[in-house]
Amino acid sequence: MLFLARMEVQFPAHLSAEEVTRLQGLEKEYSQGLQRDGRFAGIWRVVGEYANYSLFDVASNDELHEILSGFPMYPYMKIKVTPLAKHPNSIK
Amino acid sequence: MLFLARMEVQFPAHLSAEEVTRLQGLEKEYSQGLQRDGRFAGIWRVVGEYANYSLFDVASNDELHEILSGFPMYPYMKIKVTPLAKHPNSIK
Amino acid sequence: MLFLARMEVQFPAHLSAEEVTRLQGLEKEYSQGLQRDGRFAGIWRVVGEYANYSLFDVASNDELHEILSGFPMYPYMKIKVTPLAKHPNSIK
Amino acid sequence: MLFLARMEVQFPAHLSAEEVTRLQGLEKEYSQGLQRDGRFAGIWRVVGEYANYSLFDVASNDELHEILSGFPMYPYMKIKVTPLAKHPNSIK
Amino acid sequence: MLFLARMEVQFPAHLSAEEVTRLQGLEKEYSQGLQRDGRFAGIWRVVGEYANYSLFDVASNDELHEILSGFPMYPYMKIKVTPLAKHPNSIK
Amino acid sequence: MLFLARMEVQFPAHLSAEEVTRLQGLEKEYSQGLQRDGRFAGIWRVVGEYANYSLFDVASNDELHEILSGFPMYPYMKIKVTPLAKHPNSIK
Amino acid sequence: MLFLARMEVQFPAHLSAEEVTRLQGLEKEYSQGLQRDGRFAGIWRVVGEYANYSLFDVASNDELHEILSGFPMYPYMKIKVTPLAKHPNSIK
Amino acid sequence: MLFLARMEVQFPAHLSAEEVTRLQGLEKEYSQGLQRDGRFAGIWRVVGEYANYSLFDVASNDELHEILSGFPMYPYMKIKVTPLAKHPNSIK
Amino acid sequence: MLFLARMEVQFPAHLSAEEVTRLQGLEKEYSQGLQRDGRFAGIWRVVGEYANYSLFDVASNDELHEILSGFPMYPYMKIKVTPLAKHPNSIK
Amino acid sequence: MLFLARMEVQFPAHLSAEEVTRLQGLEKEYSQGLQRDGRFAGIWRVVGEYANYSLFDVASNDELHEILSGFPMYPYMKIKVTPLAKHPNSIK
Repeated sequence: MLFLARMEVQFPAHLSAEEVTRLQGLEKEYSQGLQRDGRFAGIWRVVGEYANYSLFDVASNDELHEILSGFPMYPYMKIKVTPLAKHPNSIK
Repeated sequence: MLFLARMEVQFPAHLSAEEVTRLQGLEKEYSQGLQRDGRFAGIWRVVGEYANYSLFDVASNDELHEILSGFPMYPYMKIKVTPLAKHPNSIK
Repeated sequence: MLFLARMEVQFPAHLSAEEVTRLQGLEKEYSQGLQRDGRFAGIWRVVGEYANYSLFDVASNDELHEILSGFPMYPYMKIKVTPLAKHPNSIK
Repeated sequence: MLFLARMEVQFPAHLSAEEVTRLQGLEKEYSQGLQRDGRFAGIWRVVGEYANYSLFDVASNDELHEILSGFPMYPYMKIKVTPLAKHPNSIK
Repeated sequence: MLFLARMEVQFPAHLSAEEVTRLQGLEKEYSQGLQRDGRFAGIWRVVGEYANYSLFDVASNDELHEILSGFPMYPYMKIKVTPLAKHPNSIK
Repeated sequence: MLFLARMEVQFPAHLSAEEVTRLQGLEKEYSQGLQRDGRFAGIWRVVGEYANYSLFDVASNDELHEILSGFPMYPYMKIKVTPLAKHPNSIK
Repeated sequence: MLFLARMEVQFPAHLSAEEVTRLQGLEKEYSQGLQRDGRFAGIWRVVGEYANYSLFDVASNDELHEILSGFPMYPYMKIKVTPLAKHPNSIK
Repeated sequence: MLFLARMEVQFPAHLSAEEVTRLQGLEKEYSQGLQRDGRFAGIWRVVGEYANYSLFDVASNDELHEILSGFPMYPYMKIKVTPLAKHPNSIK
Repeated sequence: MLFLARMEVQFPAHLSAEEVTRLQGLEKEYSQGLQRDGRFAGIWRVVGEYANYSLFDVASNDELHEILSGFPMYPYMKIKVTPLAKHPNSIK
Repeated sequence: MLFLARMEVQFPAHLSAEEVTRLQGLEKEYSQGLQRDGRFAGIWRVVGEYANYSLFDVASNDELHEILSGFPMYPYMKIKVTPLAKHPNSIK
């Protein structure tokens, strides 16, 4: 079951550069783990923004919320989720 | 080069049911042709709306506009395009 | 799996009063069938608007889209869907 | 009498993790008390957001405001309330 | 129990001037009846707009929806309702 | 001459609880003085928000601005003013 | 007492070119009469739009609404009014 | 003096295909004349939309409005104009 | 050549009352100098807001930006500029 | 391949005037380098705002994101990118 998420990162001013770097490292590890197990089907950078569109393939809303709220940078993200259904014109 | 498009269909009131059916048939054919040649990388229905998110893989902005404006239902669509770049955390 | 939908009805000017009445009858029948089988968990009128908030309990995004697009008045509805997860403070 | 509330939490940057945890504990206690006495008819997490949709069953606007402004995290919440009426298609 | 409503009138193009005049007459009668029985506590024109702010004093959300949907011009109105509570600084 | 104002309070994070309490006391005194002299015709809490709708009866725009900018909490308020005229259906 | 109004004209599709020309003639006459008697203190075209900003100098909200609703093209206008007060830095 | 304009075309449903084609022909002629005399410094299609961004180089606001309102498709355009100034980092 | 500007002041929390007073003094001096030389044709307070509408009469976009960015409180202002043209109904 | 970007600068309150000046120097150098190599085809100040419209001529979305995210002031910018295609009426 697919969901599209627009995820935008907004760090508060008081975070140090070191903390940001540390969070980005944890984020990469977490993100790539999810991609490898197949539940994180794709991630693309929005050109010119500290934001991405991400495609998730999960079994339930609860699983999706668990994944999203587990992102190390979740407290600094603004996320909007769109549930997707099969399109009648899709050949997949 | 990837682009995400949100495409929303708004038929005017005067279109007959037959014309709508005819357009939907042409749309399916056009859409599936593009998917088979690889430039239309994915299409998903937005749940509850006559709208979709579509992923295009093209060589230029001009090619993308040519593809989008060629959709049989293009005159009745409201489209918003977001250019995408490779995300540093993507494993693809 | 729960979803909240805000559904707003906008009839085009050319629909006759008879057609509106006929659609409302079909809508009631369809709506109550879904409520009885448990997949339509609640529906409430937004005070002062031809709109409602509805709660759906379904197994997948595809099932939800099938239900929503099956409403007799679907062509005249503007729907926004919000996926819901279990809240940690809920006692249910 | 039912009201739907969308409640979004926005903690200011200066709140310590301890203070947040303490507030969340008080919030849970307050929330579950209201659920048990029947005036708080349901609460669901919005997937991907620090927000919820909540359903209240109260006797008056004043009672609802008293309940909402009594939430321990009220100073950090952005709340939008929608009054609900019985829907003619509801079987409840 | 008080509610503030912003009511905006939008007549479709096909309504004749006679029909508009007839509706306005019915509207005045309906509106003044409600004002006399005390449930319609005030109505003011928004300067420069075919819109008003109205104050209703009713016993429930259902009663308010019944009143609003009973306006002869209701099908041509866009209404937004705000529930009001007693303000701690009010001397009334 | 009547004006409706939506007034929303947003205290900055650095204000102490004591300063907030002090401002609220001054606010109450100022507000009730205006209500007693008849220029502040009504104030209602927006349910669930630190906001109110207020009705002012003044002789000029300048007088209204003087009143509004004199509120002790004015620097922390976001105010939107709507000029009101007599409604043809009003019985007052 | 000054008010700024943004006035935007939106003719419905069914108005004939002759009717539009007739309305524009009446509008000019009405507008210039108000300018000559001093209550219409200025009117400027918004570049690129069928819209204007207008400055009115009137004695009351009721007088302003009477003026605005008297414009021959009023049924086809979308108007937003902003009440203005004397600015402390103005040398007038 | 440069201005950026976002111009969006919205044909009403009743325009015939022939009338649209005729207008597009006139539009091209008018547009290219302005480009050749140097006052229309550039025009680009917004990908996926019946809209463009256009750059005008004119001597005054009045001249710009005269040019914009002279477009054959002006009655069917929604235009937003942004005045531009020299940027301190520009090497032109 | 006329431009309308909506100018809104938003002081950051860390500015001292003394610094605010000093800036307001400089602002008044700068503003009144421009009004006396004729390029600042009018300034009005928006009732209830720390904002104004201002009318500028300048020879070019560059001159207007130079004037606006020279305001002592410019770093704390949010400005929106609308270019104005002569209105065909204006008698000036 | 052309893209239009609206770039808005928002410095956080804690940046010192020296740091701002240093960033502006680096920005100018970076910006002019890109303009000289032809990939930065134009930059214009939005009158009255700390913002610009910029035109980029690049080979891919990835190249554009690399350029934009390389701006020294990128962490303090809000950027919106619009992909542009050749317009059929353009004479270039």
